[in-house]
Amino acid sequence: MAAITIFGNGNMGQALDSVFTAGGNTVTHIDRDDAVENLGDIVVLAVPYPVAVSIAKAQAAQLAGKVVIDISNPLNFDTWDELVVPADSSATAELAKLLPDSQVIKAFNTTFAATLASKQVSGKEVTTVLAAGDNAAAKQMLADALKTSGVKVIDAGALKRARELEAMGFLQMTLAASEKIGWTGGFAILN
Amino acid sequence: MAAITIFGNGNMGQALDSVFTAGGNTVTHIDRDDAVENLGDIVVLAVPYPVAVSIAKAQAAQLAGKVVIDISNPLNFDTWDELVVPADSSATAELAKLLPDSQVIKAFNTTFAATLASKQVSGKEVTTVLAAGDNAAAKQMLADALKTSGVKVIDAGALKRARELEAMGFLQMTLAASEKIGWTGGFAILN
Repeated sequence: MAAITIFGNGNMGQALDSVFTAGGNTVTHIDRDDAVENLGDIVVLAVPYPVAVSIAKAQAAQLAGKVVIDISNPLNFDTWDELVVPADSSATAELAKLLPDSQVIKAFNTTFAATLASKQVSGKEVTTVLAAGDNAAAKQMLADALKTSGVKVIDAGALKRARELEAMGFLQMTLAASEKIGWTGGFAILN
Repeated sequence: MAAITIFGNGNMGQALDSVFTAGGNTVTHIDRDDAVENLGDIVVLAVPYPVAVSIAKAQAAQLAGKVVIDISNPLNFDTWDELVVPADSSATAELAKLLPDSQVIKAFNTTFAATLASKQVSGKEVTTVLAAGDNAAAKQMLADALKTSGVKVIDAGALKRARELEAMGFLQMTLAASEKIGWTGGFAILN
């Protein structure tokens, strides 16, 4: 159990609230313009990527020592045909550069809000959260916080793997936007 | 139903044979050094990416007019930590440059050999083939060839999406290699 602070209260922010609450954690929300005091051990940036960048730039000192979760899919939402981060990098890697004293993790970008809230993909398979980051203890803290939540967590490797997680999230969004899958379905991860 | 020629007879070549045969197609295999005569309408390069490059360079004339399927995951197999294609490109895009008179499609790189052969992910969910390419008729030919095969096909968009398919295939392989998932499991795609 941990104290969780979620930036953002949109669809993903609310779904994250429900799943972390189900895991027995204490959850508080914060707006991007709120004073960032009394942050929890885990801070989730459930905001669009450009806003996450703004928060990281403005609040690096307050986020120092925290486990910071980047859930963003940094699409070019004008074209839906590319990401806005350098091709050899990732949103998470860019945020980690801005937050050198935080432990930055990529997670939740490959789960739609609906599959996170319901904890099932297409009502059939348990929702799996893929998490990538360079600090094993930080990833373990996230896994512990979700242990009894009803969603499964898989360590997807180093921070470098955020690039692949973002590609996968992007692909999944394009499939849903083109009605090849539903927003309650998508990629289930089976053993 | 179509005539299918498969370069390569490894695990993936054999699994592709079984699935295309199940779809009612005529399948022939060819070794990389065989004379490439009497190629089918669909030619599958079920070989490692460097070999696919060699074939494309040597046989571009013979592959002209064909639907060419690139199934490769162009990992750096020394490090398992990166792809060997430019970050803003894909193996498929690189092959398409070498085969300007072929219709090049990315497919089958996100299915393990076992899930292709069994047509099920983890024995539970139907295996889905994601296919990306710029020619709708070519993708339709592939979909038609697999219509009664027992695997599902989803059009994943333009050739540009091969980059994301390769990232997804790479990620899935790292998860299996690190025993987070099994080689008979992985990413199922649900509606």
